[in-house]
Amino acid sequence: MTFAKPFLSDNAAAVHPKMWEAMRGADAPDNPYDGDAFSGELDARFTALFGRECAALWVATGTAANCLALATMCAPHGGVVCHREAHIEVDEGGAPGFYLHGAKLMLAEGEGAKFTPADIAAVIDPIRNDVHQVQPHAIAITQASEYGRAYTPGELTALAAFAKERRLGLHMDGARFANAAAFLGGSPEETARAASGSVDSLAFGFIKNGGMGAEAVVLFDPEAAHQVRYRRKRAGHLQCKGRYLAAQILAMLDDGLWLANAAQANAAAQEVAAGCGDRLLHPVEANELFVRLSETERAALRAQDFAFYDWGPDSARFVTAWNTRADDAQGLGRAIAAL
Amino acid sequence: MTFAKPFLSDNAAAVHPKMWEAMRGADAPDNPYDGDAFSGELDARFTALFGRECAALWVATGTAANCLALATMCAPHGGVVCHREAHIEVDEGGAPGFYLHGAKLMLAEGEGAKFTPADIAAVIDPIRNDVHQVQPHAIAITQASEYGRAYTPGELTALAAFAKERRLGLHMDGARFANAAAFLGGSPEETARAASGSVDSLAFGFIKNGGMGAEAVVLFDPEAAHQVRYRRKRAGHLQCKGRYLAAQILAMLDDGLWLANAAQANAAAQEVAAGCGDRLLHPVEANELFVRLSETERAALRAQDFAFYDWGPDSARFVTAWNTRADDAQGLGRAIAAL
Amino acid sequence: MTFAKPFLSDNAAAVHPKMWEAMRGADAPDNPYDGDAFSGELDARFTALFGRECAALWVATGTAANCLALATMCAPHGGVVCHREAHIEVDEGGAPGFYLHGAKLMLAEGEGAKFTPADIAAVIDPIRNDVHQVQPHAIAITQASEYGRAYTPGELTALAAFAKERRLGLHMDGARFANAAAFLGGSPEETARAASGSVDSLAFGFIKNGGMGAEAVVLFDPEAAHQVRYRRKRAGHLQCKGRYLAAQILAMLDDGLWLANAAQANAAAQEVAAGCGDRLLHPVEANELFVRLSETERAALRAQDFAFYDWGPDSARFVTAWNTRADDAQGLGRAIAAL
Amino acid sequence: MTFAKPFLSDNAAAVHPKMWEAMRGADAPDNPYDGDAFSGELDARFTALFGRECAALWVATGTAANCLALATMCAPHGGVVCHREAHIEVDEGGAPGFYLHGAKLMLAEGEGAKFTPADIAAVIDPIRNDVHQVQPHAIAITQASEYGRAYTPGELTALAAFAKERRLGLHMDGARFANAAAFLGGSPEETARAASGSVDSLAFGFIKNGGMGAEAVVLFDPEAAHQVRYRRKRAGHLQCKGRYLAAQILAMLDDGLWLANAAQANAAAQEVAAGCGDRLLHPVEANELFVRLSETERAALRAQDFAFYDWGPDSARFVTAWNTRADDAQGLGRAIAAL
Repeated sequence: MTFAKPFLSDNAAAVHPKMWEAMRGADAPDNPYDGDAFSGELDARFTALFGRECAALWVATGTAANCLALATMCAPHGGVVCHREAHIEVDEGGAPGFYLHGAKLMLAEGEGAKFTPADIAAVIDPIRNDVHQVQPHAIAITQASEYGRAYTPGELTALAAFAKERRLGLHMDGARFANAAAFLGGSPEETARAASGSVDSLAFGFIKNGGMGAEAVVLFDPEAAHQVRYRRKRAGHLQCKGRYLAAQILAMLDDGLWLANAAQANAAAQEVAAGCGDRLLHPVEANELFVRLSETERAALRAQDFAFYDWGPDSARFVTAWNTRADDAQGLGRAIAAL
Repeated sequence: MTFAKPFLSDNAAAVHPKMWEAMRGADAPDNPYDGDAFSGELDARFTALFGRECAALWVATGTAANCLALATMCAPHGGVVCHREAHIEVDEGGAPGFYLHGAKLMLAEGEGAKFTPADIAAVIDPIRNDVHQVQPHAIAITQASEYGRAYTPGELTALAAFAKERRLGLHMDGARFANAAAFLGGSPEETARAASGSVDSLAFGFIKNGGMGAEAVVLFDPEAAHQVRYRRKRAGHLQCKGRYLAAQILAMLDDGLWLANAAQANAAAQEVAAGCGDRLLHPVEANELFVRLSETERAALRAQDFAFYDWGPDSARFVTAWNTRADDAQGLGRAIAAL
Repeated sequence: MTFAKPFLSDNAAAVHPKMWEAMRGADAPDNPYDGDAFSGELDARFTALFGRECAALWVATGTAANCLALATMCAPHGGVVCHREAHIEVDEGGAPGFYLHGAKLMLAEGEGAKFTPADIAAVIDPIRNDVHQVQPHAIAITQASEYGRAYTPGELTALAAFAKERRLGLHMDGARFANAAAFLGGSPEETARAASGSVDSLAFGFIKNGGMGAEAVVLFDPEAAHQVRYRRKRAGHLQCKGRYLAAQILAMLDDGLWLANAAQANAAAQEVAAGCGDRLLHPVEANELFVRLSETERAALRAQDFAFYDWGPDSARFVTAWNTRADDAQGLGRAIAAL
Repeated sequence: MTFAKPFLSDNAAAVHPKMWEAMRGADAPDNPYDGDAFSGELDARFTALFGRECAALWVATGTAANCLALATMCAPHGGVVCHREAHIEVDEGGAPGFYLHGAKLMLAEGEGAKFTPADIAAVIDPIRNDVHQVQPHAIAITQASEYGRAYTPGELTALAAFAKERRLGLHMDGARFANAAAFLGGSPEETARAASGSVDSLAFGFIKNGGMGAEAVVLFDPEAAHQVRYRRKRAGHLQCKGRYLAAQILAMLDDGLWLANAAQANAAAQEVAAGCGDRLLHPVEANELFVRLSETERAALRAQDFAFYDWGPDSARFVTAWNTRADDAQGLGRAIAAL
């Protein structure tokens, strides 16, 4: 496989130079696990970013981040409402079943892999309120969604109100939170707050955005944070040399690098989108494009060294990253337009 | 806390220069997860090292490595015999209970945190062979042990024979496998084979030995390997950018760096040991020293900038690492001798 | 709620006189758990009935019977294909998630809550054969189905062949196995074999068929049986005084009482069906009827003392039992016809 | 094995006549599960008995009763302190590991299989308050203990105060609660309250005391009760025909039958004890005797048709039941005295 003009995924992109610098800067002896000076800064930094008290813990994957957070809000005998195409349902190898000890994922529909209170109600209202049926305990949304769509502040407010009314926890899978935030616009603080709304927890992704191996679980409930500290260790996710993870995250927060990187990826996606016209299956808001393309057309693009995944029989997915070259993005846009 | 003369733990030591080099060398675009070229080499490299067919998968922690391996040999309704002071029992936050779905740890005694077939038999022979009592499914040993003791090839042979006779799986927690191997001596191949014997699986540690965030689960049973691939993902341990982990491990295997690093740490431990005389609670074989020291004596050492952990009320633990300076080790030895 | 003319469910019907007799006959001192003489007969009696070697263990509920069997054929990281309306998915409070340690239920469609190899393939063929997606390990079918439909021997043969080809376990939820068997017809041996085909395990229900509190898990694989003995204890389902459960089951097998009881219930269902005409939503094969009835019509029936559950807004479910009085069944048929 | 003079266990004794009567009295049609009139009475009846608000749910085994209660007070990442010889540790096939999703049992010492706050402190005080070590969440005591010893009201008060101070849940395994209560003496209400102290939950055993297949989980915390309703179903312990279980329990409560039965068993134990002299390994308080007896002596007793279990190489266990004949008890006492 050639990686000349890579649009396969942002999840394997190179590591940003600032990450290397930050990791090297953490090489001095320090306490193990999360007892180091870098890890010790996380809570305060995220609290400042989001403007409300929170705890932030590093983990190596979004899967772990999502599941650790969800386990604080859904008992083993409960259920989590998520979109039918949510990553936790489709692509995490059953991790929620493991971390939540057999809790049930309850699948909702919704355009662009987003959903609304009404979509959730359609799933949970028919559940009889008796012990024979699993009761919902939490909701998980993805920001940006699996189709690269961003929840707006208004949509998030509606979801939070619904969750509160129904006494359900609300978790946000933010593997591409930065891309959603960049789409919504504003300063790092403004946009972080706008893009997260009033969720109870957020898996804030950095790896797809130039990081090497660190995501943050952000918990807005202190009791949940306490629990996650124990559960992270129990899941084998408390790394010895946590300072190298914390350092990456701190460097991402410095000067809003997380937002700048995402903005670059989003811009590259727009360059591609410009050539796609009505081939686009979803509006391009973050850094993913779903494009109607026949087998022949896909072959033609691959012959020009563009690497990407098929998306079903008649379309393809293209993902841009923080380091997508403008040339490649424009080139891809032109190549699609020329088909 | 000062880190001037650090003997707290090898688990927080700086990352070896070859690791940085290897990680930088993995920065080119490649496939995500373990589809990259580096990860693709692991099975062959470990098979060559151990001289028998095996699969090797990276994970970020020893806790995950141990638990993923154990889950292949112990059903949820079974038990794992381990030493009463084994790390999996004492210091992994209940991770085996999580990964093995509630299986039971059965605690054996044994000198120096090692045990023999007789020690194991003392635990499992009294178990009635009926459904009211949990039956043993596997044995877990630690090489080097929690007191820095190495199992000899003869001891390993006896354990493997016992495990086979009783139809129990045999797993080795090798968080400091390299230090045990270095103690046993020989070429990388000779010593890797001697130090591992005929175990069914090995958690081969690199992080305490100069790595940043990669350990290897080595599985000598293909069916177990197949299972661990799925279970690793399910546990949120399949990192996107696995190539940075694989690259570290490959660099450790190059020219036997893993063994050289461990030999350095062991040598430093011997420098310290030279000053300890009959204060030593355990023979020093790997890179840990357990030394009888009163509170006053410990304070005196700390006043000289030596950093270390108390070990109960009357003793202390010192751990050397790949990068312990000879000066510091000799200085510590002299300081203890001078008490 | 009146119970004058009860068609709510067979699951709360009175206990058959032969059960009382059998339980009283077990009142002499004997060994606890399943060490008694009654429990000791079960394997042989079911082996004779099914004409192939099997083990049979009593448990108190169908939920436990299903889950204990499924846990032997589906690892925690695997999945079980079942019908979207299967009891294990809809009405067992998430028990499979508990017993299978978070394994996934994979929902197939199919007429009358039955499904075919093609229906299963439609669910599992799109699953990518990689670690990001949960892989199917087993299939669970219900005989008679949740809509009272019986799988024919030919259908069962096709399912068993498909399961074998795909290396999937095949379990049968037989909460109303007797009613399906009675529909297929023949001697107890003939019909037990015809109705079970070549499944790997069967939850053979007796409670809905006149028993008080005993179902049988029948396991055609000795290794699975060994495992279930341990798992049953671990799940708290090994009762002290198991002889009272075993005695019920043995009495059910004596002279084919299980089949006779089911035949009576089925006959009563046919009496009702006779009055339903094209109101029937599903052919009546076992002892359940799903009947199109408006709210007014349901109220009219209830005014005549018929007790039953609504089934959605426009229909009702009627269930007959071993002790449904012919008068009541005929009366219900006439009452519906007269609407 | 002969059952002529049975002292093997109370767990397989015949069912009390009042139980049969009660079950027969429940044979009229009623709602399934716990929707019936009998089950509906339980909460009020136990609330009256214990003099404080509680919920009471039937289950078929003490194993399930204990585990369902413990799961409400110990998270999967926590631990339950119990005696090293507690039934939940030794004889329940690992059920706590299953129900508590891998939580850890922490083993305390203590005379007569009872323990004190100091015994518990000895286990939990050394636990470092960090994520690497499992933290205690609950305490489980057994009343009467595995050696037939009763906790006094004063001892229970001390334990409850300790549990509260340490913020630990307190559960009582009352498989032989009635025998402990009978030893403490008083009216049913007085003695139930005295023998249970201020525990958070109680597994109130009836099966060893003349019941057929019903124990009660008594929960003094409404939130725990809510949870157990769901967890009971999920564990496959919500029986269809629950009225037959509820009826047994209600009949046990009528006129203090539970206490009268236990008093009879205790009295029989005293008859035996009268002949044991200093052979007794533990004071006889409830209905179990642990007696020093050589192999030859045990053989001599068995030759006289006494059935009992060996208890290690040099002793035997004798258990009396509600229906132990005075002749048999006195005969056994005399036979032991005559050895």
